[in-house]
Amino acid sequence: MTIPSIPKGTRDFGPNEVARRNYIFNTIRQVFENYGFLPIETPAMENLSTLLGKYGEEGDKLLFKVLNSGDFIGDLPASAFISSNASALANKICEKGLRYDLTVPFARFVVQHRNEIIFPFRRYQIQPVWRADRPQKGRYREFYQCDADIIGSDSLLNEYELIQILDEVFSQLQIRVKIKINNRKILAGISEQLGCPEKITGITTAIDKIEKIGLDNVISELHEIGLSKAAVDRLQKLLQFTQQSTDEKISYMRQWLDGSELGNKGLLELETLLGYVQWDNINNIIEFDVSLARGLNYYTGTIIEVKALDAEVGSIAGGGRYDNLTGIFGLAGVSGVGISFGADRIYDVLLQLDKFPQALQQNTKIMFVNFGDSNVKYLLPYLKELRKRGIASEIYPDVAKIKKQFSYANARNIPYVAVAGEEEITKNEIVLKNMSSGNQYAIGKDKFVEHVINILKQS
Amino acid sequence: MTIPSIPKGTRDFGPNEVARRNYIFNTIRQVFENYGFLPIETPAMENLSTLLGKYGEEGDKLLFKVLNSGDFIGDLPASAFISSNASALANKICEKGLRYDLTVPFARFVVQHRNEIIFPFRRYQIQPVWRADRPQKGRYREFYQCDADIIGSDSLLNEYELIQILDEVFSQLQIRVKIKINNRKILAGISEQLGCPEKITGITTAIDKIEKIGLDNVISELHEIGLSKAAVDRLQKLLQFTQQSTDEKISYMRQWLDGSELGNKGLLELETLLGYVQWDNINNIIEFDVSLARGLNYYTGTIIEVKALDAEVGSIAGGGRYDNLTGIFGLAGVSGVGISFGADRIYDVLLQLDKFPQALQQNTKIMFVNFGDSNVKYLLPYLKELRKRGIASEIYPDVAKIKKQFSYANARNIPYVAVAGEEEITKNEIVLKNMSSGNQYAIGKDKFVEHVINILKQS
Repeated sequence: MTIPSIPKGTRDFGPNEVARRNYIFNTIRQVFENYGFLPIETPAMENLSTLLGKYGEEGDKLLFKVLNSGDFIGDLPASAFISSNASALANKICEKGLRYDLTVPFARFVVQHRNEIIFPFRRYQIQPVWRADRPQKGRYREFYQCDADIIGSDSLLNEYELIQILDEVFSQLQIRVKIKINNRKILAGISEQLGCPEKITGITTAIDKIEKIGLDNVISELHEIGLSKAAVDRLQKLLQFTQQSTDEKISYMRQWLDGSELGNKGLLELETLLGYVQWDNINNIIEFDVSLARGLNYYTGTIIEVKALDAEVGSIAGGGRYDNLTGIFGLAGVSGVGISFGADRIYDVLLQLDKFPQALQQNTKIMFVNFGDSNVKYLLPYLKELRKRGIASEIYPDVAKIKKQFSYANARNIPYVAVAGEEEITKNEIVLKNMSSGNQYAIGKDKFVEHVINILKQS
Repeated sequence: MTIPSIPKGTRDFGPNEVARRNYIFNTIRQVFENYGFLPIETPAMENLSTLLGKYGEEGDKLLFKVLNSGDFIGDLPASAFISSNASALANKICEKGLRYDLTVPFARFVVQHRNEIIFPFRRYQIQPVWRADRPQKGRYREFYQCDADIIGSDSLLNEYELIQILDEVFSQLQIRVKIKINNRKILAGISEQLGCPEKITGITTAIDKIEKIGLDNVISELHEIGLSKAAVDRLQKLLQFTQQSTDEKISYMRQWLDGSELGNKGLLELETLLGYVQWDNINNIIEFDVSLARGLNYYTGTIIEVKALDAEVGSIAGGGRYDNLTGIFGLAGVSGVGISFGADRIYDVLLQLDKFPQALQQNTKIMFVNFGDSNVKYLLPYLKELRKRGIASEIYPDVAKIKKQFSYANARNIPYVAVAGEEEITKNEIVLKNMSSGNQYAIGKDKFVEHVINILKQS
């Protein structure tokens, strides 16, 4: 027998995992809603034209493409179907792709529905995304993102509120984190100061890897993209300058960026934001990290990344400001800022730190033993009433040996079992057994439902 | 400017639609849980080998296939890429497909995880499915199914409980329905009696269309599949025999099926199930309908279909027993029975009948007007405290004209707006405005949060 399997990088979730995942989703959702964010949902499939070119060349390769239905070949000549041409060909035989993140579909949503939307628009979205990444620990091909964005306002108060949300969610989940912030304009200013503003993408891509590959390798990469030795040396000093206080970092950066208008604008934004943060009792550490770059090209201002302090899993949340994301869909001048929680990595952290609350799973509270039809008929009104009162209840469906029925209840961790044999039926009673203590006693059938509700309240 | 769009047959959901959809999902989920069902989730993508051949030839065509990543052409000769070969070729360049329903993935799940599962296993699953069907009113290419199945028990009590669930959910949603039931063994018995047991699929496929295409067209189709005139005449009498009481129908069928062991077994199952249903106060109509066939081939016993009485949308729920679904994945002898709610059609019915409860949307309750940083700093503790107490609150992010800020609150239907100008700050007060009455008054800042919570409770 070949055991069936699922595509690599995807997962099945059993009842306990679903309950734990819902605990994460519900925590995040409740905080989003308390901050005035409204939910939207978008389709799993987007037109490929919506997705292509939004995530860089690498991102395009990682899109899952959906084959056109029916005759997908049509007029394409057989000569088009050669391996070296696979990538271009894919876009001819597929016009749809699976959602790669929630930000680009959100930008598309905003442009498409701009006449119905009241700006500034605070939306949240909790849905799966798909990436054809190489699966590895903590990286899946299907995973959930939980995003909150504010679009149509360039106030830095929005960034501040998103930082409050990050702080609140991780406090509630009992995960200690460091919230790192930087500003893309500072990174642009750095490129300017190094005399190569056109190399900003290369520089940020290299810097972004500092934690993964170490400073030496970042420096090699900076040489490779054509930075002069003097520029690399200057940048190196900056990247090694990480241990000081925030005020020291900012005044150092002010000197370093002297003369770069863009760089100073970024620095001013950063200072303003850090000023807001000081108004408040933030539970977690906020750190200005000039090496923080974030891969996605659409960011133009503040960038944010969150790391768990007590677990090694990469970033568990992040975000930033994008001044022109809707511009790619034809709606210019709408600034947005957002954050995204990586629910799957948060799951792994909670598991590793043993921080999931006990008894998350909504389980059956009472099972009725089945001795046959007349017995079921006797028990039915109580089963039905308990369910109506919101007590998860079941009756064993088969007329099996009582031992088998109790084994099932035991294996399922059902705390109470109810039995009514001929004697109990004659006496208008039902026997209730506490499965953990083994205690059992008869109850008049008219008092049965109230009794069960009371003992469940107490336990 | 080209307005971006989404693939045909898919939909965006705004905040109000999400709230209404969640009302449906939560109602169904709560009933499932009260009946002891546990949630699972499976990946959106399954291996094509899991999906192909499970939904009939038509179903295979309606599967969305996901193109293999990278070089999907590989060793395939260019000559393979011809239109007439598209369908076979698709299976060579795609090894994954999108979930078409929740039943086959569930069967796959049961076989794959059979050593962790406690049988009988009561699972529910609420997830989207995708079908490359021609989009039309009430039929989408991405839609949600809400399934409950019991696997590992052949007791008819399971069917009975599923009927109770159908009755309970539609009662709670205030949709009046007719629950039609039949039994696949009766249909098999009919084919036997007509002398062509091998034609059961053709016969049931034809019968299944009676509501859509009418009796005359069904009869033509029966001739087309090669039934003799005598057989068609005999069947026609049966199909016209629909107005009698259930008891009359059953005794008529008993005569009709005389001599067919399978047919009589089906009839006995049906009678037993209808007997159970009579134990109970079912709110909705239960009807034995011998023309009910249900398209899916994997059913082997009871079949169920639910129609709304007050709206024309086709079936809004359905299900049945399958004795050997896990057999296709190598695990034989496990009988299951399940139902599926079509959330999208239920949505359309609730909308049409105006049965959605008011005020489902979780909206911001209070907005603070923003006069600039020092003003925000003054208001911040109250904003934060309200959010902590679970009151959805926001501060307008920009220092815009007060008229603009009030317009926003108005458009968003935010019921209360809080303002603190210089005067209020000096007096340690905050002004609260009721947006619907226009009333406004000052409150001492220390009493502000309790006051807001109190008036929100009253409204």
